[in-house]
Amino acid sequence: MTAFEALDHLLGQRFSTSLAARRQNAGNEAHYPEALPDAVACPETAEEVAEIMRHCAAEGIPVTAFGTGTSLEGQHLAMKGGVSLDFSRMNKVLQINAEDMNVVVQPGVTRKQLNEELRASGLFFPLDPGADASLGGMAATRASGTTAVRYGTMRENVLALQAVMSDGSLIRTGTAARKSSAGYDLTHLLVGSEGTLGLITELTLKLHGLPEAVAAATCHFDSVAAAVDCVILTIQSGIPMARIELVDEMMVRGFNLHSGIGLPEKPHLFLEFHGGPGAVREQVAMFREIAEDAGAGGWKDAETTEERSALWSLRHGALPAIGALDPRPGRKTYSTDVCVPISRLAEAVSVAQAEARARGILATIVGHVGDGNFHCGMRFDPAAPAEVEAVLAFSGVLAETALRLGGTVSGEHGIGLGKQKYMAAEHGAALDWMRRVKTAFDPQAILNPGKLLPAND
Amino acid sequence: MTAFEALDHLLGQRFSTSLAARRQNAGNEAHYPEALPDAVACPETAEEVAEIMRHCAAEGIPVTAFGTGTSLEGQHLAMKGGVSLDFSRMNKVLQINAEDMNVVVQPGVTRKQLNEELRASGLFFPLDPGADASLGGMAATRASGTTAVRYGTMRENVLALQAVMSDGSLIRTGTAARKSSAGYDLTHLLVGSEGTLGLITELTLKLHGLPEAVAAATCHFDSVAAAVDCVILTIQSGIPMARIELVDEMMVRGFNLHSGIGLPEKPHLFLEFHGGPGAVREQVAMFREIAEDAGAGGWKDAETTEERSALWSLRHGALPAIGALDPRPGRKTYSTDVCVPISRLAEAVSVAQAEARARGILATIVGHVGDGNFHCGMRFDPAAPAEVEAVLAFSGVLAETALRLGGTVSGEHGIGLGKQKYMAAEHGAALDWMRRVKTAFDPQAILNPGKLLPAND
Repeated sequence: MTAFEALDHLLGQRFSTSLAARRQNAGNEAHYPEALPDAVACPETAEEVAEIMRHCAAEGIPVTAFGTGTSLEGQHLAMKGGVSLDFSRMNKVLQINAEDMNVVVQPGVTRKQLNEELRASGLFFPLDPGADASLGGMAATRASGTTAVRYGTMRENVLALQAVMSDGSLIRTGTAARKSSAGYDLTHLLVGSEGTLGLITELTLKLHGLPEAVAAATCHFDSVAAAVDCVILTIQSGIPMARIELVDEMMVRGFNLHSGIGLPEKPHLFLEFHGGPGAVREQVAMFREIAEDAGAGGWKDAETTEERSALWSLRHGALPAIGALDPRPGRKTYSTDVCVPISRLAEAVSVAQAEARARGILATIVGHVGDGNFHCGMRFDPAAPAEVEAVLAFSGVLAETALRLGGTVSGEHGIGLGKQKYMAAEHGAALDWMRRVKTAFDPQAILNPGKLLPAND
Repeated sequence: MTAFEALDHLLGQRFSTSLAARRQNAGNEAHYPEALPDAVACPETAEEVAEIMRHCAAEGIPVTAFGTGTSLEGQHLAMKGGVSLDFSRMNKVLQINAEDMNVVVQPGVTRKQLNEELRASGLFFPLDPGADASLGGMAATRASGTTAVRYGTMRENVLALQAVMSDGSLIRTGTAARKSSAGYDLTHLLVGSEGTLGLITELTLKLHGLPEAVAAATCHFDSVAAAVDCVILTIQSGIPMARIELVDEMMVRGFNLHSGIGLPEKPHLFLEFHGGPGAVREQVAMFREIAEDAGAGGWKDAETTEERSALWSLRHGALPAIGALDPRPGRKTYSTDVCVPISRLAEAVSVAQAEARARGILATIVGHVGDGNFHCGMRFDPAAPAEVEAVLAFSGVLAETALRLGGTVSGEHGIGLGKQKYMAAEHGAALDWMRRVKTAFDPQAILNPGKLLPAND
């Protein structure tokens, strides 16, 4: 019996080699071309994942995890065919441990689904990358988003994992205890490994208490530089911002075109504050003092829950709103992200703006600037080689700038396909030790081949 | 030229094979027997560490890092001889980046030294394991201490590392950016690896703003169970405690004997609150309500900086104070530590108390209970086999209890020599993948041999 026959036997209808099923997992929200797996497998349990992996390992068949397909660097694309291991049916919240403020979930649970199921508990999972991504995918990409400045990234919020390794063995890393000094931190090795070291089959995640009080607001500045200066001073002052998002004037124009919101076309900060009522009042007052010194105007509170939801929906609609800036058919959006130490944020953003202008690229800047992290979204025509070259060159300059300023080529989108070319520049000799990990964990190179580590020449 | 000749040539007076020098690094504050290295090397730069490592690798000579020798599971002991690589001369604070709230230090800098040097910056490094440990050692052990409940452990506070690997190559992991999705997280693989995967030669650490307001206090309870219930409710309520330390009645007796402080001999909580003045007032009020409902009495504010220092000096004097409970010559203190999910803390502590009583062991319980982490300190006579056996058996029951309750056999002391026997029970199949990491990173097994991973039978 071949591996595929065995998988057919094991999974029945949940295993398919049909073109329709394969195409469903072949696309992406970014600019990468389609990549067809040879088959799609939809396990329902960790044990099934282990069995799939054992069959594939026996024949050296690649296995690429698929969550919701929302990764922005092509992490879920089956570049060398094989099995697209689709976690969409592993979507159960297994345990809500309110007393311990953690939750145990299958990897296909999405963050919105989780927060729905947490509604009665008084707790929430704050991470918010925009897309309604699967939690397994978020862990694999070390995702973060708007609230990371306060609550951390997936790095800080994954307590423990269950994973299937390249030989089909099933392991558990970490415990539900908040800390441990017992052995190597395999949890953090798997978080951010983009499915190249193991397949996450269960996650124990930290939860946080719903804040007693929440305040949200927007304000605008005459220049991105002034907005960024305000952010730097805010972070340095220690105000525990729950969200502090930069939206440049071009992005505001996109929002206006896309949703008719009618914001002044100036750089904005979108803000949220969490805490006790007194603490929130203190935070807002401290922030406003800093912001007004930096030239902020147009302060607008989002007072009701509905107004706050509308504000963050607007922010999370950045990708379609970028599209509205150049809606010609066939055009795509290339989104890149870098992260720098906060003191270098103004310089990084100003390089991004100047380079985009100089290259005639339609680019927006939005970002989780409290972390020093920002994104450039560029419209381009994938059929026009000069435009493709321009966005790639711009993206390269941005990556090099981040490294020159002591930062990283990706704050949260990951490496996937698009950023392998910067791995040597960012990691130097450490890249060899990453390869050692990969070889030790996946000697046949069948876990998400072609991702994260650049090919050895 | 042999490796030792080469090291002598390289380091001159900073390399020694004298018995006096070797004995200096052979002892420990815990109960482990002396272990003599064959030589002590005191490098001053990362490049020297790399060269030492290359010479030792060429001859298969073990290398064991030594910071301040304050580890509690024998991590710094050269069990198989070789070189004790003593970081005491690598004690420079290299960069204080106040704007980015980080600092770059050599591994031999101690936490108190760092905070002295930060004094003018308005920033501080909050981690406080009690001992004035070296920061390299703290990272290697994944240390934490009294403030981890608020500020996290070394896991959360190391941004980037420089390390020398087993073949003498010098690598950098991480960057000064607050987050990254760029590749495998080698930083977290090295943190907690107890010098068995690489030698940390430089650390970039997060700093935190000195809180605008600080309040500290103590209160007592009629039972440890009542104190623990108060802790659980406090953590669940989301009060961002800066410190919340349990001290049982036996430990209080030790403090009274050791320092004549005259506290009521009841279980206490020692508390600290950080924030803006309004936030601190809110936190104290919320905590007092919970505590009074749980039966707290004897509330005592530590109002001045001096009173606060005295409070935390008292707490950190636990080890000598345990000694005062049984000062007979030749007796030692065996200190063990476990960590459980907060909801299981009451059960874990009650097992510890009952088992100590049943076994006739003089044991104190102190702990960073906000994290579910506590320590038992036991007095015993190393020359009395029955007593040694009793503390080992008690320690084993405690470890098994922690695992049964979903916790870990060490919250912060690490594995070292003493807890290898629980590694298989805690990690199961994951232990094989830890071994893969070790083999990939240190194929000759010359980095701190005999530690962390149990010997393969």
